[in-house]
Amino acid sequence: MRDILPLEKEQREQVIAQIRAIYRSRGFQEIETPVLEDIDRLTSGQGGDNEKLVFQVLKRGEELEKAKAEGGELADLGLRFDLTVPLTRFFATNHAKLPRVLKAIQIGPVFRAERPQKGRYRQFLQCDIDILGDDSNLAELELLTASLAALDAIGLPDAKIRINDRRALTRQLHSLGIEDQAKAMIAIDKLDKIGVEGVSKEISETYGEPVAEKLSDWLSRIGEFAIPDELSWIGSFSKPGRVRFDPTLVRGMGYYTGAIFEIEHPAADSSIGGGGRYDNMVGKWSGTSTPAVGISLGIERILDLIPQHFGDSKSLVLLVSENFEAALAIQQELIQQGWSVRLDIAAKNQKAQLAELQLQGFTHFAVLSGSEMPDVRPLG
Amino acid sequence: MRDILPLEKEQREQVIAQIRAIYRSRGFQEIETPVLEDIDRLTSGQGGDNEKLVFQVLKRGEELEKAKAEGGELADLGLRFDLTVPLTRFFATNHAKLPRVLKAIQIGPVFRAERPQKGRYRQFLQCDIDILGDDSNLAELELLTASLAALDAIGLPDAKIRINDRRALTRQLHSLGIEDQAKAMIAIDKLDKIGVEGVSKEISETYGEPVAEKLSDWLSRIGEFAIPDELSWIGSFSKPGRVRFDPTLVRGMGYYTGAIFEIEHPAADSSIGGGGRYDNMVGKWSGTSTPAVGISLGIERILDLIPQHFGDSKSLVLLVSENFEAALAIQQELIQQGWSVRLDIAAKNQKAQLAELQLQGFTHFAVLSGSEMPDVRPLG
Repeated sequence: MRDILPLEKEQREQVIAQIRAIYRSRGFQEIETPVLEDIDRLTSGQGGDNEKLVFQVLKRGEELEKAKAEGGELADLGLRFDLTVPLTRFFATNHAKLPRVLKAIQIGPVFRAERPQKGRYRQFLQCDIDILGDDSNLAELELLTASLAALDAIGLPDAKIRINDRRALTRQLHSLGIEDQAKAMIAIDKLDKIGVEGVSKEISETYGEPVAEKLSDWLSRIGEFAIPDELSWIGSFSKPGRVRFDPTLVRGMGYYTGAIFEIEHPAADSSIGGGGRYDNMVGKWSGTSTPAVGISLGIERILDLIPQHFGDSKSLVLLVSENFEAALAIQQELIQQGWSVRLDIAAKNQKAQLAELQLQGFTHFAVLSGSEMPDVRPLG
Repeated sequence: MRDILPLEKEQREQVIAQIRAIYRSRGFQEIETPVLEDIDRLTSGQGGDNEKLVFQVLKRGEELEKAKAEGGELADLGLRFDLTVPLTRFFATNHAKLPRVLKAIQIGPVFRAERPQKGRYRQFLQCDIDILGDDSNLAELELLTASLAALDAIGLPDAKIRINDRRALTRQLHSLGIEDQAKAMIAIDKLDKIGVEGVSKEISETYGEPVAEKLSDWLSRIGEFAIPDELSWIGSFSKPGRVRFDPTLVRGMGYYTGAIFEIEHPAADSSIGGGGRYDNMVGKWSGTSTPAVGISLGIERILDLIPQHFGDSKSLVLLVSENFEAALAIQQELIQQGWSVRLDIAAKNQKAQLAELQLQGFTHFAVLSGSEMPDVRPLG
């Protein structure tokens, strides 16, 4: 977890506003769910490894005393680890007030109790779009089109999306003789980091040498594979250069049932977003099966790729002394002229005072004496 | 805690954007702190009764096992109950990278483990501005001016601010013979709800009948009191009709040291915001005394006062059948014409489908057949 300082926060809010505007222009509607969810829902087996990383919230009052006395569960709530589990709960709870097909925007913090390490935060911001209730591949096409439009709008036209399908991957692993696929998927998921050799070694340890050899052979030929039937919809995509079929894409161990996506950027070490189809999760809460597909942008990683923004070009520091009433009146007049105006009591060392505020992104200054409109001059 | 549905969320984000723009135009800079803080900081005695309402987060891994085995504290983190305690911690942590006078905007969720009741949520959004490092009353004047400008911008020109000063209140209670003032303040704080008689009864129980009589007499004469010296700065305020000296304003039991504010609106049952000066809190974390004053808007209560917003006047539902590629191309063209465009697979009952989307705030529709630009018609 970390604090966000003024210049970073300003850029962050600008990027969020740009993404929100793009998604809204495509008919997505923003919703919000609470940061806390029932602990049972967050640990129901849908979230894969993330479920081990839930921050758990202690019961309160008598409930807590009872749990302590009886050795029962101490927590009843938890901080959400993604926006997808809460969204499916939201849809199950509120479906009567929602359109049958929900196209949702969610922008909010998620939490994972990871050990502190570089580039990983325990609180981070996700920006998701999801389509619930549409089993056609128009949903996949819209999500990819909208995500790429958002990435273009914030200045990342080099972002590309890798695509696979869980059903095709499962079929492929079966054809290699792998039935219990969990460990194989974990190994293949690490291909980028440990290479073909590393993956083969892990496969060999779990599934034996002959399977590992078949897998190595498959991995060496992946450039040759045709797009599987499940992904034929990619042909309707208007920007073919921005998407790429990757038969080795795994995308964690969670709730995916069909297409899976991962967003990459040449300047980023790891993915800047991802998602996929998860047709079984809403039914788990509501009993009514509802097709669903979503894609998530990781705002922290995206901000790392965008050149540092530096302040507003019409921002002014107005140095004042004793006449507060005049200062507030002049401030109002300058705001009406389009300035953003910070009032500061003039310090003894005005040069140091203004230098400090220039570092904060302020571009101009004026010194008020009396109650007349002062000259506005550029800083520095 | 509750879910926020699309139309409410849209209005909420518009209101937040308007408030943010007003505060930024006055030179305030937005910052963000994590939702979680150290539990010790949240229960250090600064937050008054709110400290009893902290959601506590369980320790993890070995730390938790150790705490259970030894009967130690089970929680190490907590969800913030306001934005003021985190801000002062932020200032103490980051002061080297901040201007000496910080004018901060914070917009974020806070959490209180209250019993569920109408109009009270356990997660709610606060929107605060604070000035740290300025001991002059320009700070108070700026906060009140900015808050009223924000309330005007969102359509609440009838909002007014009641003002008192903790030092004046303390002096007044002393003059009535009340030394240990905590219970007296709690009683006076309920004046709106229980009236002079109710307050006198509580005072009599704690401080005796003679004190209660003096207090009743004082309360009956409050309209006559002159503004105390500490509040002489109110005279520099440009909109005297929007502020009112209220010698009985108490503003909780927490961290205030000087001026205190409460924002009222004729259509609201309770205050829609408040704040005050808290000159001792930053020093508690950093050792360096720093004057500070802030004011907070309660977004949920404010939204209750604003007429229900109803969708975007240029929002379109485009009904499509099989040609997804054409649909996405037409969508793009309509977006460039300034529409926000939702794609929907045409249902058998199009009338019901469109009626449902009209309820969601969509205003127009078009039906795509083939790949030509279709006619756009108003809904309903």
